[in-house]
Amino acid sequence: MRMAELSRRTGVPVPTIKYYLREGLLLPGERTSPNQAFYDDSHVRRLKMIRALAEVGGLPIAKVRDVLDAVDSPESPFDVLGKVQHSIEPPSIDGEGEHWDKAREHVLQVLEPRGWKIDLADPPARTLVAALAMLYELDREDLVGLVERYADAAEHVAEVDVAKVTRGRGLEDVIEGVVIGTVLGEKMFGALRRLAHQYVTAKVLGVDPNASWQRE
Amino acid sequence: MRMAELSRRTGVPVPTIKYYLREGLLLPGERTSPNQAFYDDSHVRRLKMIRALAEVGGLPIAKVRDVLDAVDSPESPFDVLGKVQHSIEPPSIDGEGEHWDKAREHVLQVLEPRGWKIDLADPPARTLVAALAMLYELDREDLVGLVERYADAAEHVAEVDVAKVTRGRGLEDVIEGVVIGTVLGEKMFGALRRLAHQYVTAKVLGVDPNASWQRE
Repeated sequence: MRMAELSRRTGVPVPTIKYYLREGLLLPGERTSPNQAFYDDSHVRRLKMIRALAEVGGLPIAKVRDVLDAVDSPESPFDVLGKVQHSIEPPSIDGEGEHWDKAREHVLQVLEPRGWKIDLADPPARTLVAALAMLYELDREDLVGLVERYADAAEHVAEVDVAKVTRGRGLEDVIEGVVIGTVLGEKMFGALRRLAHQYVTAKVLGVDPNASWQRE
Repeated sequence: MRMAELSRRTGVPVPTIKYYLREGLLLPGERTSPNQAFYDDSHVRRLKMIRALAEVGGLPIAKVRDVLDAVDSPESPFDVLGKVQHSIEPPSIDGEGEHWDKAREHVLQVLEPRGWKIDLADPPARTLVAALAMLYELDREDLVGLVERYADAAEHVAEVDVAKVTRGRGLEDVIEGVVIGTVLGEKMFGALRRLAHQYVTAKVLGVDPNASWQRE
């Protein structure tokens, strides 16, 4: 198909497709003349993936490229998971002092007995430590215990994720599932947690959510 | 205290403090001379909040201001929750067509029987619909069922969150807890989900995480 048709089938505007081609996110089509190229279903699928990762997953273009590189290189799902996690984790601040030491200690104390292998230099561990250090700095030790409770729920969610994803129709499917599950899954869970906050808060405080800001 | 001391006590550099003052995130100190102002503990605390929301929560400065405005205005925790959710939700794409219709229908079908009041125009609902529409577009209906399983875990997490936060030492504490819980809690859960992915994937695939990318 020509680029116009590719745009129609994916909903991605032609200038955006050209931008993705220039940035190397999308492989060039097969040249049929100096000004024309042909695209196939692999381009349709790739564009849909880019859209899911960038427009819904919120990843910057450079990170979309990193993530798609991981999909393209034939590695084990575990290695792809590591690469994707390294690519998408926003840079986390680091700190020294009492609150940061307590945060690091708490992460190891809670997670190691669960059998999780924790490397404090690993991006998600750094994010967790930074968030906890902020709680200690804000003198909100009452919220630190959330880590334990969240860890239970996170392990449950991860078991569901891994069961679903490893049931894929082949390695390519599994790898794609790792990427989609990591990026879109996080968006989905975050949104559901916020919707659940509305429901539970309204229930606990005896508020009628219909009468309030939701319907404004 | 002078600004230098405020900087020392919070770890926020003086130019950054000046930037926050210009942007109206931080109230001016009490002027003691044309070139000097005095700051107190309320400034220390506010700077720590800004740091937690911006540097760890990843919120842009304009959103930090919106969130802090919600904290400053004396409203019910439920209204603050709504304002904070509206402020922090990244803009979500919207779409038409079969996949988007199925996504909207699925969200209502799964969440309404749980008793959650779902308004599809509400920011987190829009995010959820967009993520699901991408799964349908990518022909990954095998992953759509994650919504049900995530909803269980999200409701559990929200119950823990609300119980912890409403146990605050007063309305101010509760409101601050809503903000911190929404922003830092999401970071914490996301990081824990990724750490759990490593653990569960290694377990399921029989990989030794220590031998792999984590220790590279």
